[in-house]
Amino acid sequence: MLVCFADAEPILFVPQIEPRDHIPAGLRVQEYPWGDLKCADPYSVLVSSIGDELARLRIKAELVGMNPGIARTSLPIQAAEQIPIPEDFSQQLAVLTAKPDPRQRTSFLDLYLRKTSEEVDAIRRANRVANVGLKAFLENLQPGVTEAEVGAAVESAIYRQIGTDDIFHSRGWAMIQSGPNSADAGRFNRSTGRRLEKGDLVVIELATCVNGYWSDLTRTAPVGSPKPAVAEILELAKDAQQAAIDGIRAGASAARVDALARDKIAARGLSAFFPHHTGHHVGFRYHDPGFLIAPGVSASLEPGMVVTIEPGVYVPERGGGARIEDNVLVTESGHEVLSRTEANQRAGSK
Amino acid sequence: MLVCFADAEPILFVPQIEPRDHIPAGLRVQEYPWGDLKCADPYSVLVSSIGDELARLRIKAELVGMNPGIARTSLPIQAAEQIPIPEDFSQQLAVLTAKPDPRQRTSFLDLYLRKTSEEVDAIRRANRVANVGLKAFLENLQPGVTEAEVGAAVESAIYRQIGTDDIFHSRGWAMIQSGPNSADAGRFNRSTGRRLEKGDLVVIELATCVNGYWSDLTRTAPVGSPKPAVAEILELAKDAQQAAIDGIRAGASAARVDALARDKIAARGLSAFFPHHTGHHVGFRYHDPGFLIAPGVSASLEPGMVVTIEPGVYVPERGGGARIEDNVLVTESGHEVLSRTEANQRAGSK
Repeated sequence: MLVCFADAEPILFVPQIEPRDHIPAGLRVQEYPWGDLKCADPYSVLVSSIGDELARLRIKAELVGMNPGIARTSLPIQAAEQIPIPEDFSQQLAVLTAKPDPRQRTSFLDLYLRKTSEEVDAIRRANRVANVGLKAFLENLQPGVTEAEVGAAVESAIYRQIGTDDIFHSRGWAMIQSGPNSADAGRFNRSTGRRLEKGDLVVIELATCVNGYWSDLTRTAPVGSPKPAVAEILELAKDAQQAAIDGIRAGASAARVDALARDKIAARGLSAFFPHHTGHHVGFRYHDPGFLIAPGVSASLEPGMVVTIEPGVYVPERGGGARIEDNVLVTESGHEVLSRTEANQRAGSK
Repeated sequence: MLVCFADAEPILFVPQIEPRDHIPAGLRVQEYPWGDLKCADPYSVLVSSIGDELARLRIKAELVGMNPGIARTSLPIQAAEQIPIPEDFSQQLAVLTAKPDPRQRTSFLDLYLRKTSEEVDAIRRANRVANVGLKAFLENLQPGVTEAEVGAAVESAIYRQIGTDDIFHSRGWAMIQSGPNSADAGRFNRSTGRRLEKGDLVVIELATCVNGYWSDLTRTAPVGSPKPAVAEILELAKDAQQAAIDGIRAGASAARVDALARDKIAARGLSAFFPHHTGHHVGFRYHDPGFLIAPGVSASLEPGMVVTIEPGVYVPERGGGARIEDNVLVTESGHEVLSRTEANQRAGSK
């Protein structure tokens, strides 16, 4: 838990068992018990330690704000299970603050919406690693291989990056949907034991977390040449995605960017087969809090925002679906696609 | 969200986009919106749908109980990120119930503590799959291989099980700590880019989720022959674990089982190097709610409980640590180790 002050150095409260080697240098660190056989309630110790610091600095509750949202909790980078924070922890913390001011929520959210250049570099690195996974995806698109085997190869390639390029943590979550299963990729993502067949479309939904920063990519590629019934779907998904990316610039509204993709799909009479939003913020989580790139959203893009652009077309009657997703930084002069590389483009990004 | 009634059939509320093929047959299913561009607040729809059902059956709020704990929320089986349930969802649900009765918490917790024989079979299968991962662990213990490469091989082997043996979902999270890093395995688990060396102890902490049921295992194995300084540690961890397992029977207190392991370690003067609990409940999560197998815990084991037994000894001055962890079912006549197979035993379990 990070506590920041207007005119004192911030304090990072960390569990006593936590490794310290990747905590940024110069940050004041204070530990609280965790996994300690003598302490049954580490959270109350944490709350009272924070209270002590506030008292020492004579900071009144009226001056204390707290991020009330779910985004308060970082994802565990080992990921098997969230740390079970007690149900009433928010209430415990609330004793340190005055009645919540709705403006607090807005100002905390602002910290998530605009990434610093250091943060953008970290997201760029997560995308570089994700591309190692996408290379494994392409190499494994062979008839007879199961969806699960393709996903396992992708995740393995990503995990193995630990120890290279200053990477101390690297994990991927790859969900593979092939042939008729790809027509479900607009509703849910999961890998099955289905074996790939020649002509299938194969969708990979790939979350990648590197050193705590996230990439969220989707690619769709055929096994060999796509069957004619699905080839058009794949091209349409690519065209729709490119149209939305082309419209990304500071000041563009979320609804406008969404419409650029949605109109392309509507023009082919396939609106009903693009049931979801066009994008969301990304980088601190797989899905960052903040406005969606979706119909009716009037919020505008600003420099430093990083969003996904991920239109899709899923047509069960044709036996397939396609989605292409990139992570795009809004810049002063337009945009930069953080997730494009050569391998990436072969895997479906234009 | 599952709603059960004393004298009507239960209802499972599922998001509209959720696949239905693995929902148990015969369960009444009602959908609520999710990922629907026309519905900004699916949770309020869910709460009011449940309210409608309660009203239809004329059930008063005084008769409605709710699991108030964190265990209410299942882990997402795709695992990259928890679904961001709104911070105030508990309060939204609370309108359906009367003032919470503390006995509710106890009765809900009871459902997690005692596994049915079907549930035990599912945990047994998760352990069978985990053993496929442990086989990959042993095969990859070669000098020059990085911890991350070993972990990647284990997770990949587990993921590839999807599609076999009625397995529709299978994921592992393997954390590998070798040589001096193994001395940290009592505080935190993570894989680094360190390359294995001859004589190292290597600890694998392995979470495995198969069809929604969990195994939690640890093994410690040497690369070749262990260095003499750590060989004793490994044997001691094995002996302490076996002593605790031997004491598992209905009626044994958690404190007593813990002491059986802890005393073995104390007898060698190494108490200070076993800093954590001996075990916890397991099966519905990586760490189920319920009492710990730890000093001072008077609760007793009962048939149907499944617990981990995982003492460890971590001695930085000797350059290594070891932990052996199994999942043990309490039976009417004693216990059954759900996680032991031949490969398992070669990897460190007695």
